[in-house]
Amino acid sequence: MSHFSYKINKKDLKRLGTLKTPHGLLQTPFFMPIATRGAVKQITVEEIKTLGAEIILSNTYHLFQRPGLEILKKFKGLHTFMGWNRPILTDSGGYQVFSLSKMRKITDGGVRFQSEIDGHEIFLTPEIVIDIQLAIGSDIIMVLDECPSGTCNHETAENAVQRTITWATRSKEYFEKRMKQKRIPPAKRPLLFGIVQGSTFLDLRKHCVEELTKLNFDGYAIGGVAVGESSSDKQKIIKAIAPLLPADKPRYLMGLGKPEEIVFATQHGVDMFDCVIPTREARHGQLYVRTGPITKKSFYGTIKIGNEKYKYDKKPLDAKCTCYTCAYHSRSYLRHLFTINEGLAMRLATLHNLAFYLDLMREIRA
Amino acid sequence: MSHFSYKINKKDLKRLGTLKTPHGLLQTPFFMPIATRGAVKQITVEEIKTLGAEIILSNTYHLFQRPGLEILKKFKGLHTFMGWNRPILTDSGGYQVFSLSKMRKITDGGVRFQSEIDGHEIFLTPEIVIDIQLAIGSDIIMVLDECPSGTCNHETAENAVQRTITWATRSKEYFEKRMKQKRIPPAKRPLLFGIVQGSTFLDLRKHCVEELTKLNFDGYAIGGVAVGESSSDKQKIIKAIAPLLPADKPRYLMGLGKPEEIVFATQHGVDMFDCVIPTREARHGQLYVRTGPITKKSFYGTIKIGNEKYKYDKKPLDAKCTCYTCAYHSRSYLRHLFTINEGLAMRLATLHNLAFYLDLMREIRA
Repeated sequence: MSHFSYKINKKDLKRLGTLKTPHGLLQTPFFMPIATRGAVKQITVEEIKTLGAEIILSNTYHLFQRPGLEILKKFKGLHTFMGWNRPILTDSGGYQVFSLSKMRKITDGGVRFQSEIDGHEIFLTPEIVIDIQLAIGSDIIMVLDECPSGTCNHETAENAVQRTITWATRSKEYFEKRMKQKRIPPAKRPLLFGIVQGSTFLDLRKHCVEELTKLNFDGYAIGGVAVGESSSDKQKIIKAIAPLLPADKPRYLMGLGKPEEIVFATQHGVDMFDCVIPTREARHGQLYVRTGPITKKSFYGTIKIGNEKYKYDKKPLDAKCTCYTCAYHSRSYLRHLFTINEGLAMRLATLHNLAFYLDLMREIRA
Repeated sequence: MSHFSYKINKKDLKRLGTLKTPHGLLQTPFFMPIATRGAVKQITVEEIKTLGAEIILSNTYHLFQRPGLEILKKFKGLHTFMGWNRPILTDSGGYQVFSLSKMRKITDGGVRFQSEIDGHEIFLTPEIVIDIQLAIGSDIIMVLDECPSGTCNHETAENAVQRTITWATRSKEYFEKRMKQKRIPPAKRPLLFGIVQGSTFLDLRKHCVEELTKLNFDGYAIGGVAVGESSSDKQKIIKAIAPLLPADKPRYLMGLGKPEEIVFATQHGVDMFDCVIPTREARHGQLYVRTGPITKKSFYGTIKIGNEKYKYDKKPLDAKCTCYTCAYHSRSYLRHLFTINEGLAMRLATLHNLAFYLDLMREIRA
């Protein structure tokens, strides 16, 4: 059964697709707001829908810690627990294990580390990570990978790629076994994605692509970007690797990025994005404003709303934006709310920045 | 021109009224959510409307500090600044001056104190406080009063009452002068309320009522309750003083209170309420749940949502509540959001507790 279909726009060679998941169809390219622990910070599920997001990303590692699997199982998954009935993608937890936890020990078997919350020891394997995501009820499951920093040497990257391939193989086998055991009908079957690692070394990344594609995943992600490498390295990786991924499968660029990076990546055939930038920057009062069509090199700017110059500014953040914040409030009022450190400030800012990103995706698709 | 009309329900002797303000009619008794600095914490103006609040209270003292009058004047008042087109009541700032600021000096002229934000000296007089509230664009303006603690002695209370009466007299005169100067037409004219002080001493409070009513305010408030006196003293004051206030003017019990206190006060002819309890307790995860009709002595309970016992609780906070939170989310999910200290938790809790209070008022009016 094929989950993905696409066509190439003849005019600009853009790739537009449809991705089928157990919780509905998705138009690609799309952007996933991040609901780290089962909530997009400050925002209700109804607001996420109103903004036009069709899928969210939640973090396996964080959900595993809190609320924990016991609660998620009682609710038969995250969808019911958080009240979201559209698709959910979960990452594998690999990135968080490598970025958050101290005292970790990686072997071919899996990764052993201490919880950053209470210090208790956790052991994650490719198989355990699949079972956790099945318990979460994800629509799109990511395999466990090893994500080295963007500035590591060739040897470190090569070892990480080798382990990533080994783990991907085990993941795929285990996933198929579990689908059979649980007798999941095709329409209810989550999608399983492989992840291409290799740091900034294209030879390693190409090797990783070759090995992963043999396993026939439902989609492929480019992982290990935005982990310390330069902006030009990022572009180099996207440009070289995205076109190597099977055209008839969705391509997901993990954790990226700035608006111009997303536009760049869609031009090279990437279909799926997630990034903390719009929501995190919103909470710090850094807000996006469109200045022109995306075909222009510089199509947006940012506003630091705390700046003195917005003190008396009666204009909305962006007169053309259709979000709640721009419909109801001035820059002056938003600045006031940030000045008094009012929670509503972060909320209104988050709504606006997510609207900016989701409108951007709509425009790319249009 | 009379702003207020009312009728007495023959069955239960309840007082139901209509209050006319420059921004529309209000049905009494009503409860005012608190927008301290021009925002109800966590909540948008649209949500306040959806909850059924018809008027909000904002704090003159806090607004005077931030955003400050200069910004409010640029926006021609708080309504435009915060995007709220229904009535606003502002307090006089007196309560905050007496509760927040150190280094204050009260004379018959006014009150001199240091800003708790930057230490600069501020001098407030009855006249200045009226001008500030006119700049804010309040629909209901409160006069400057002196609010001693609920445990002060008779002499302290007597002096405070005397000064409150003197200031009320000056306030009324100055207000009338300003209305003439600004040629405000009757329909655009804000209402001016006097405030009864006297601590727990009924002789002083009665004297205060007698003097204030001679000044013919548009409404009368019972101030200086919930400032340290006992619960039975509160009841004694409400029971004795509310009926002494002119029946054809709205009666406002400042800063109160718990649901049973509001029910009690409406039974003694009080029309208007404000209180931080529902919003403040919401932010601490203390949530209200109805258990029966308000005619029952115990008609509600509270839930401490952080409690372990709600860990797996799939029920909404209150199955009969129609708020967003109860429509979408379980106690278990709310508990999770509080556990991870997510802003959305405070927001969902605030929505629910305000819904509880506003539903309570609807039920009292029904």
